[in-house]
Amino acid sequence: MLLLHLSDVDEANWARKFREALGDYPVVRRGDDFDPKAVRYIFVWKPKPDAFDGLDNLKAVLSLGAGVDALLRHPRLPRDVPVVRFVDEDLSQKMTDYVVAQVAMHHRLHSRYAADQKARRWVQLYPPAAHETSVGIMGMGVLGQHAAERLKALGYSLRSWSRTPKDVEGVEGFAGEEGFGPFLAGTDILVNLLPLTPETQGILNYETFARLRRKLDGGPAIVNAARGGHQKEDDIVRALEDGTLGAASLDVFQVEPLPTESPLWTAPNCYITPHIAAISNEQTGVRYFSRILLDHEAGKPLVNVVDMARGY
Amino acid sequence: MLLLHLSDVDEANWARKFREALGDYPVVRRGDDFDPKAVRYIFVWKPKPDAFDGLDNLKAVLSLGAGVDALLRHPRLPRDVPVVRFVDEDLSQKMTDYVVAQVAMHHRLHSRYAADQKARRWVQLYPPAAHETSVGIMGMGVLGQHAAERLKALGYSLRSWSRTPKDVEGVEGFAGEEGFGPFLAGTDILVNLLPLTPETQGILNYETFARLRRKLDGGPAIVNAARGGHQKEDDIVRALEDGTLGAASLDVFQVEPLPTESPLWTAPNCYITPHIAAISNEQTGVRYFSRILLDHEAGKPLVNVVDMARGY
Ligand SMILES: NC(=O)c1ccc[n+]([C@@H]2O[C@H](COP(=O)([O-])OP(=O)(O)OC[C@H]3O[C@@H](n4cnc5c(N)ncnc54)[C@H](OP(=O)(O)O)[C@@H]3O)[C@@H](O)[C@H]2O)c1
Ligand SMILES: NC(=O)c1ccc[n+]([C@@H]2O[C@H](COP(=O)([O-])OP(=O)(O)OC[C@H]3O[C@@H](n4cnc5c(N)ncnc54)[C@H](OP(=O)(O)O)[C@@H]3O)[C@@H](O)[C@H]2O)c1
Repeated sequence: MLLLHLSDVDEANWARKFREALGDYPVVRRGDDFDPKAVRYIFVWKPKPDAFDGLDNLKAVLSLGAGVDALLRHPRLPRDVPVVRFVDEDLSQKMTDYVVAQVAMHHRLHSRYAADQKARRWVQLYPPAAHETSVGIMGMGVLGQHAAERLKALGYSLRSWSRTPKDVEGVEGFAGEEGFGPFLAGTDILVNLLPLTPETQGILNYETFARLRRKLDGGPAIVNAARGGHQKEDDIVRALEDGTLGAASLDVFQVEPLPTESPLWTAPNCYITPHIAAISNEQTGVRYFSRILLDHEAGKPLVNVVDMARGY
Repeated sequence: MLLLHLSDVDEANWARKFREALGDYPVVRRGDDFDPKAVRYIFVWKPKPDAFDGLDNLKAVLSLGAGVDALLRHPRLPRDVPVVRFVDEDLSQKMTDYVVAQVAMHHRLHSRYAADQKARRWVQLYPPAAHETSVGIMGMGVLGQHAAERLKALGYSLRSWSRTPKDVEGVEGFAGEEGFGPFLAGTDILVNLLPLTPETQGILNYETFARLRRKLDGGPAIVNAARGGHQKEDDIVRALEDGTLGAASLDVFQVEPLPTESPLWTAPNCYITPHIAAISNEQTGVRYFSRILLDHEAGKPLVNVVDMARGY
């Protein structure tokens, strides 16, 4: 039996789609009448505190989110049941769309021309070519690699930073704590695609910004498409105001929706989007998790299982 | 002998570089003491009215500009001397950088989020994936094809419009007058990379805008990176104001620098850059034209020769 436990999204619609995809396989929702012991899989998004209570025969937790930081902080998540996260081409494509748009905007000095336009000023400052601009990607997993591939096709100089060393053609790889400084020192535009873990919490802070390369006209830029917990928002405001950063594109925030009184709304060259970089798609989501469930019931191993110790 | 005749750029520097590249081959500038009859090649940018006078043994006119519309309107340009235009990977790359940045910005609904940010409004409108967005490229020559290749790698749905039919994989080709309507009808973001000729003059007008597809949130967008003569600026202002267009990125203008009193500076969702999309690079320019000159002197045919009848 598959139990759906989704908050803030159209659970009924997901249930309908799962029933279509799974045929005879029983699909239930929270309000339905069912035996908790019969539940073998639970599909979750923002689970309530009692979400996992009584589910004694759970084989896997299926997470609608690609990021599982909030789920892993759930106090009553059974620690011995594997968590499968969502990995999806449509999601990756949309994230890359966002990253490419923000990177290209900053590389092409959008903030500078917008200021000149406001002042009706005609100054012919020429942006560098893509290959003269270095994009540094923090997090070289599913999303980081997808974005790197497309940025490479555009001609950017690329570098990445990850926990373990990566060897991707055309991307200079840096890893671990000792690689962080050298990575930042050659980065003009910093893109964050890390998972949120105790190690990566608050990594987008003033000290980090001050270590970026100062080659791009106006100063280095950051793009945060991962989690609000990665960023220290006071530090971003300060860095934008004192020129340590030239621009910032933020899709995620410490508190969402971003509170009306946040200084980020009006910080100089700060580009805010309301956590819309990439959304999970119902159609591909149902296809993905149905396949995983049926394969697992047929004896195949789970894929994209979260490592509880690492936290992602 | 090579004569340099360059206005508004550092002619002395170009002369120095050409002398380095051409060795014994004589290179002169306007003020120098030389016999006009000895000039076999003239390298021009914004030539004065008397630029070609007395150059009776001219073998070729070398144009620093990739676009030759202004040069061809020169009243005393010898009509029987071939004109060679600049075609260059560095120039193409920079033009593509500009086009990609503007297309991605519009596809990702930049204007909409900027307005929401100004109002401190959090509304989760999700942009479509790249493949759900159709980019229509007018002009499928050196620049159009270069941009198409990179936009394809990003996943956009692509279509092109040219004088003669083009068969490029992954790009739906339309050609000629009868192809123009169907081309526009499926285009969300219109990119202009046409040469300026009597046929293409004023092609970015209200009627054209009204024929674009209205699928993108906020309305279709245009990107003009070719020539100011392609656009009717009053029509652009009107279309942006009444919503026929959702956004416009303009790098070129009817009059440059754009006059302070132009309504384009403050038209809604109009993104102005001061003709900086792509500039000719001295280093690659000298290499390119030196090679052409020496090859031609060695008996090889000229390349990238302008068709005087077509006007490009
Ligand atoms: N804003 C949105 O709309 C949105 C949408 C989807 C996802 N996201 C976020 O994007 C994140 C990344 O997703 P993904 O699918 O690409 O994750 P992933 O495949 O698990 O990749 C994570 C990457 O981060 C690296 N990493 C983890 N901890 C690190 C550390 N302490 N130091 C250095 N590198 C570290 C990993 O290194 P190794 O390769 O060495 O393991 C890996 O390269 C998700 O966790 C989620 O929070 C946001
Ligand atoms: N803003 C800047 O910084 C900047 C920099 C460089 C260049 N430019 C501009 O970009 C223009 C294009 O450069 P390019 O090197 O790509 O030129 P190109 O190689 O000559 O290509 C021109 C393209 O336009 C098409 N075309 C011409 N007349 C047409 C008509 N009446 N109807 C439909 N299609 C027509 C041609 O069709 P066919 O293929 O059928 O011949 C060809 O595909 C230049 O002329 C210049 O004005 C601007």
